[in-house]
Amino acid sequence: MADQDLRTPVGSEPPDLSVLRWEEPPGGPAVVLLDQTRLPSEEVELVCADVPELVRAIRTLAVRGAPLLGIAGGYGVALAAARGEDVEVAAELLEQARPTAVNLGYGARRVAGAHRAALHGGASSEGAAAAALAEARELHRADAAASDSMARYGLRLLEELMPGGGRGGLRLLTHCNTGALVSGGAGTAFAVALRAYREGGLRQLWVDETRPLLQGARLTAYEAGRYGMPYRVLADSAAGSLFAAGEVDAVLIGADRIAADGSVANKVGSYPLAVLAKYHHVPFVVVAPTTTVDLGSADGASIVVEQRPASEVTEITSTPGAPARNGAGRMVVTPPGALAYNPAFDITPPELVTAIVTEEGVISPVTGVGLAELCARSSQVTIS
Amino acid sequence: MADQDLRTPVGSEPPDLSVLRWEEPPGGPAVVLLDQTRLPSEEVELVCADVPELVRAIRTLAVRGAPLLGIAGGYGVALAAARGEDVEVAAELLEQARPTAVNLGYGARRVAGAHRAALHGGASSEGAAAAALAEARELHRADAAASDSMARYGLRLLEELMPGGGRGGLRLLTHCNTGALVSGGAGTAFAVALRAYREGGLRQLWVDETRPLLQGARLTAYEAGRYGMPYRVLADSAAGSLFAAGEVDAVLIGADRIAADGSVANKVGSYPLAVLAKYHHVPFVVVAPTTTVDLGSADGASIVVEQRPASEVTEITSTPGAPARNGAGRMVVTPPGALAYNPAFDITPPELVTAIVTEEGVISPVTGVGLAELCARSSQVTIS
Repeated sequence: MADQDLRTPVGSEPPDLSVLRWEEPPGGPAVVLLDQTRLPSEEVELVCADVPELVRAIRTLAVRGAPLLGIAGGYGVALAAARGEDVEVAAELLEQARPTAVNLGYGARRVAGAHRAALHGGASSEGAAAAALAEARELHRADAAASDSMARYGLRLLEELMPGGGRGGLRLLTHCNTGALVSGGAGTAFAVALRAYREGGLRQLWVDETRPLLQGARLTAYEAGRYGMPYRVLADSAAGSLFAAGEVDAVLIGADRIAADGSVANKVGSYPLAVLAKYHHVPFVVVAPTTTVDLGSADGASIVVEQRPASEVTEITSTPGAPARNGAGRMVVTPPGALAYNPAFDITPPELVTAIVTEEGVISPVTGVGLAELCARSSQVTIS
Repeated sequence: MADQDLRTPVGSEPPDLSVLRWEEPPGGPAVVLLDQTRLPSEEVELVCADVPELVRAIRTLAVRGAPLLGIAGGYGVALAAARGEDVEVAAELLEQARPTAVNLGYGARRVAGAHRAALHGGASSEGAAAAALAEARELHRADAAASDSMARYGLRLLEELMPGGGRGGLRLLTHCNTGALVSGGAGTAFAVALRAYREGGLRQLWVDETRPLLQGARLTAYEAGRYGMPYRVLADSAAGSLFAAGEVDAVLIGADRIAADGSVANKVGSYPLAVLAKYHHVPFVVVAPTTTVDLGSADGASIVVEQRPASEVTEITSTPGAPARNGAGRMVVTPPGALAYNPAFDITPPELVTAIVTEEGVISPVTGVGLAELCARSSQVTIS
């Protein structure tokens, strides 16, 4: 993997965040990734010229986030095809790089399927490689289009809820990281805030730091800063003071899974925000593609919440999940032997959710019937 | 300042936490402090044999916490008197060690006053030194007695609220550090949990880590572990999941200031817990001595909330406030130039407070009239 420095020269406008792209330099094709393990302190790209390099990037969390992993898996298979390598083996290698990331295997298998179909249809190996790349590009394009659509629907909803943009622009509170770093486009909840900003309607983005892994402080702040958005980072529990002071016009969060009744599983800390929002009569808006809806889960109680290692709470690392560089970047904050309670997600019941914004439209109030109708309209393949 | 290692031999019962004490070894009297900057990783005592050593310990936060600083200031003046030094100068030096800590100046001035009164009454310098030490000991004793009294009243209240101890013992959630490390006794909110534990009635102590300075993870976990209490540390925003799962029987917090209407200023993150407790019908109990009540502040709006430096949010240090040792123990978690919102406290209005427990008794429901009556009964001098 080759590194290339991406820092923006002082005074110039930053380019749009390029998190993952396909390139065809003279030396042969490559998947180029922004190395997320080095954010927010360094902006460095990894150039992955073959599947083992991409697998390593996935394993070390240089690339992460469900939709983005699906796209990476797809391009990885296209890379194998372009190099004349065994595409089925490549798809298997990519899928096994992070076996629990369902999107990764989905993307890899979908592109391998397009490759296989092209060969069965009589295409040459070059033709099949072109078909694989086209399928990967389509996966990427569809994800970016879904982001655009969610951003449009989301901003329109906020304008309806707060005509005039809440005097002087919206003050939006968000949690975790839901932007371009996890998506083929501008993301989910973050994409709505970005669109508000680009249309001149964002007064303040409040960024929950999102303990334990600090995705808000590290990644959302990085994205917001790069676009020049007005933002401030806060300890998660300081959000209460903002609500009490009337400084939040709406909460925007993403979702990891949405049950059939509209219960929303998302990063731990979402549910307390929903309760605070309800208590202060502030809209609580969930932004997620229809692929996030799992009609097989009847309600919140049927979603199993993963308990994560205590060390995520008892230690703070500079790059969560990635191997520490030079032994630095790890700090133990509790006494030896401390136990921790560390659920990865929490569940927000539909009665606390003002609206769910998807690429197909908005549901408000949130009901199981509305959700089922919306999903039936979706052209997206549900990943499960 | 000499260091002495305090680690408890494996298998033996830990002694009661000795955070600050007066000693009279053959070499002369000394104030012996547990060095809080080295917790939770190391238990080391500082032996301060003169006022400059104690001033240094106060400046470096080796000793901290409002009531404890008052006691330290008092013993510091007694130390100067015992050494035959100028007591008024010593009181001034101690007070200026942390000028915003009102209790520190109060303790120093009170003991200096006792010394002066003894001299005016015809005492010898030895007699005046003895009077100063007696006054410092009385300050210490009264604070410890207040802790005991709050613990008794608090536990009785919990037993009334939850007869039978909530089946199998209480599950109590606390925030920040309110134990022996900030007090002449067992503390405030923590003292109630400790009493429940000692009477066999504590099933679980949930310890909010308390971002940004992590007093829960570092200090409350240390105290709970030392006593052998069953506890778990959690990211502050994971408390929502505990409430939703019915895993919290009561919230116990301390207070930095209580306004005349019963509004409670306490460490940021207290108010969101109060809203969550209300939403889940869980008692929210404030434990604080009557000296915390400020009848000069009419209500929550009249309490000015200090905004703390952004660096407390954007960086994590191993020993907040203390000078870094060997340059280690500092980790920046946000991108360069990130701004932060960092209020030190938040305000919980009386309608969200189930009860206020003081050393004089319990007020529930919380009303301004009840608070004023309780304070009128108090023999404590209100510090302001």
